[in-house]
Amino acid sequence: MPTTLYYSDTMTTVKDQLLTAHHSRRSLQQAPGKKIRKCLLDIAKAILKQETEILAANQLDLDNFDLNDPKRDRLLLNRDRLQEIANGVRAVADLPDPTGQVLLKRSLSNGLKLRKVTVPLGVVGAIYESRPNVTFDIAALCLRSRNVAVLKGSSEARHTNFIAVTILQSVLNKHQLDPDCITLLPAEREVVDELLHSPQYVDVIIPRGSDGLIQYVRRNSLVPVIETGAGVCHVYVDREADLEKAVAIVVNAKTSRPSVCNAMDTLLLDKKIAEKTLRLLAKPMADAGVRIFAEAGALPFLKGYPMLEEAQATDYDREFLSLQCAVKIVDGLPEALDHIDRHSTKHSEAIVTENKTTARAFLDLVDAAAVYSNASTRFTDGAEFGLGAEIGISTQKLHARGPFALEKLVTEKWIIQGKGQVR
Amino acid sequence: MPTTLYYSDTMTTVKDQLLTAHHSRRSLQQAPGKKIRKCLLDIAKAILKQETEILAANQLDLDNFDLNDPKRDRLLLNRDRLQEIANGVRAVADLPDPTGQVLLKRSLSNGLKLRKVTVPLGVVGAIYESRPNVTFDIAALCLRSRNVAVLKGSSEARHTNFIAVTILQSVLNKHQLDPDCITLLPAEREVVDELLHSPQYVDVIIPRGSDGLIQYVRRNSLVPVIETGAGVCHVYVDREADLEKAVAIVVNAKTSRPSVCNAMDTLLLDKKIAEKTLRLLAKPMADAGVRIFAEAGALPFLKGYPMLEEAQATDYDREFLSLQCAVKIVDGLPEALDHIDRHSTKHSEAIVTENKTTARAFLDLVDAAAVYSNASTRFTDGAEFGLGAEIGISTQKLHARGPFALEKLVTEKWIIQGKGQVR
Repeated sequence: MPTTLYYSDTMTTVKDQLLTAHHSRRSLQQAPGKKIRKCLLDIAKAILKQETEILAANQLDLDNFDLNDPKRDRLLLNRDRLQEIANGVRAVADLPDPTGQVLLKRSLSNGLKLRKVTVPLGVVGAIYESRPNVTFDIAALCLRSRNVAVLKGSSEARHTNFIAVTILQSVLNKHQLDPDCITLLPAEREVVDELLHSPQYVDVIIPRGSDGLIQYVRRNSLVPVIETGAGVCHVYVDREADLEKAVAIVVNAKTSRPSVCNAMDTLLLDKKIAEKTLRLLAKPMADAGVRIFAEAGALPFLKGYPMLEEAQATDYDREFLSLQCAVKIVDGLPEALDHIDRHSTKHSEAIVTENKTTARAFLDLVDAAAVYSNASTRFTDGAEFGLGAEIGISTQKLHARGPFALEKLVTEKWIIQGKGQVR
Repeated sequence: MPTTLYYSDTMTTVKDQLLTAHHSRRSLQQAPGKKIRKCLLDIAKAILKQETEILAANQLDLDNFDLNDPKRDRLLLNRDRLQEIANGVRAVADLPDPTGQVLLKRSLSNGLKLRKVTVPLGVVGAIYESRPNVTFDIAALCLRSRNVAVLKGSSEARHTNFIAVTILQSVLNKHQLDPDCITLLPAEREVVDELLHSPQYVDVIIPRGSDGLIQYVRRNSLVPVIETGAGVCHVYVDREADLEKAVAIVVNAKTSRPSVCNAMDTLLLDKKIAEKTLRLLAKPMADAGVRIFAEAGALPFLKGYPMLEEAQATDYDREFLSLQCAVKIVDGLPEALDHIDRHSTKHSEAIVTENKTTARAFLDLVDAAAVYSNASTRFTDGAEFGLGAEIGISTQKLHARGPFALEKLVTEKWIIQGKGQVR
């Protein structure tokens, strides 16, 4: 395989690619549901069948990184990871078609027949970083929802992305679907701006990656953006909590997968149970290797804790994404609500309490995508909620909130059928 | 009543006002539904009862304009218009509460109880121009949906808006609702930027007014925006149309209220029926005073038409908002679809045909908020669709599409109740 074969070598401009992608959308919109499902199942097969080619292309990308560079692991594909990707595509094939759902149906008194139905968004632009599984994930979700996928991956993964899209397009072709329904843009950085300034061809942009990328897209896009955001998540242990449950929930929320957005960042403790709870938590948290940034008032209760620091004001706004957390003591529910209101990124927030009225108040008053009573924040996830694969967790309030899954890759359309009615 | 009494004279900063508005949201979220309804009915009463004060304040605003300035009519309130506004508020009082709707409910295999419910957006910022009825409309819709309304009206209407909000707040107060739930910002232009840069206090911005205002807000807002857009609307008369229906629909779509966004802008005619249709249309269109910009090929069929010009390429992108329209002849459905794809603003599009397959293809393939077969585009309207009062017609694809009514002034929240579950 030649090492310099990527799109930017062709004579096609980005605008041409976007126009072609835009025109290809009808091919998906008119395809029977069965064809889309079969095509997805064939994609899963092709990924495994062409393992050798994919891994060879991936090796070309890997060769640019030292063996101990953490970026290398993010780029790396192997047999296991390809199997996982293929399984993911197969799962998407089996999800119900989110388009064509009738949301409302009524006959008006003038005889007009009115329906509101879900339809594809049209062309979805995805901008992401080095992980090559995103190429397959987004392409599969877009195909299942009859959206054209325009992919802008990282230049670090250019060989892998090129072979991935070549395979995807050949399967589309085999099923008589327009191969431009999955379009790979050149990997160059400048292409991002061209994509963000093409609202005439692209209907929505999904940025996936670092906060810096998401902020850049949000500030510069003329195309509407669906963003998935950071999670500064709290667990509040109320004075009427079952402390055994509290300890299990806190340890799970912090340590089961600390690198993800639904992990706990700040533990809020009612002052009446603060000392007892911290004494119970010290051993399991220390065993898991958690560094604690505690407010001054909590330090005596953690005496002897191996990784302890006094919390700075800014620690309460940190999304740690690692085995670290902040601890704060509050005077009951009102102060907990006030702290969360100030510091939450509106992702996932939990209360532990046996008092139903207190739980209800917390669930009602906390402004977040997901609010929990007596459960770990770690459950905020499309698959856990029964929605299937997700693109991420949306912390915005418009269009999609919480797990942003297949069901939200649609828009609505009003269809009105008359017999000559005028107003 | 003093002539210089408006908010910018107080010592309160805009940031303080936004913070206070943000904190007031719980007052609405916890209020019983009956209280909200009663408060709205009392607002309708107060508008009529305080007619004298409102009209006096309105006169101060009107005094800045010449009698024949068209801006004066937009600003003007009188007994009839206040009655209309009060009726509108009463209608909103009777709409169902859009919050607290359970969209999904499931028990997971691990015992977690999961619900997705609608909740208020929180704080809604409205930026609008001179019409003072918008103050009452938006305040009523926000109150009904338990959202705090932060209003930035035009300085031209400052006295009217001040008395309006004073009345609204006194009714809130009477019902033990926090009066800051309806907050009027200073009328100065710079306040707009402060509002657009306050995502920590404001959840969504709704611009209402000229295209210039909407573009400015879209480009400068850090707060998510819901916009209602322009309509370049088409009626396509197919070769298999019932021409009697076609004439009625075209005349209605163009002339029944030419100043609104759902009026027809371009008439597309299949070449097989172009001549006959234009000959039938000439008299009613001329009688209504419609100026026609027709493509060269259509000019002979309109010979003798009193207000006729040859269409320029740019005429097909005009939203006329007046008694003018463009006419183009196309070679059947594919060319009609292609023209609409290029020139439509995705608002309202109609086909006239007796062929069901052709109608179905048009309804499926045209990408617009509302698509019609054999009916006038003028029906795109919240009240016509049975949704009640609307803020406008959304031509965007995310969150709200088509009539943007009360039902879309909400977001979703996932509520998860457990018994100590961890992942």
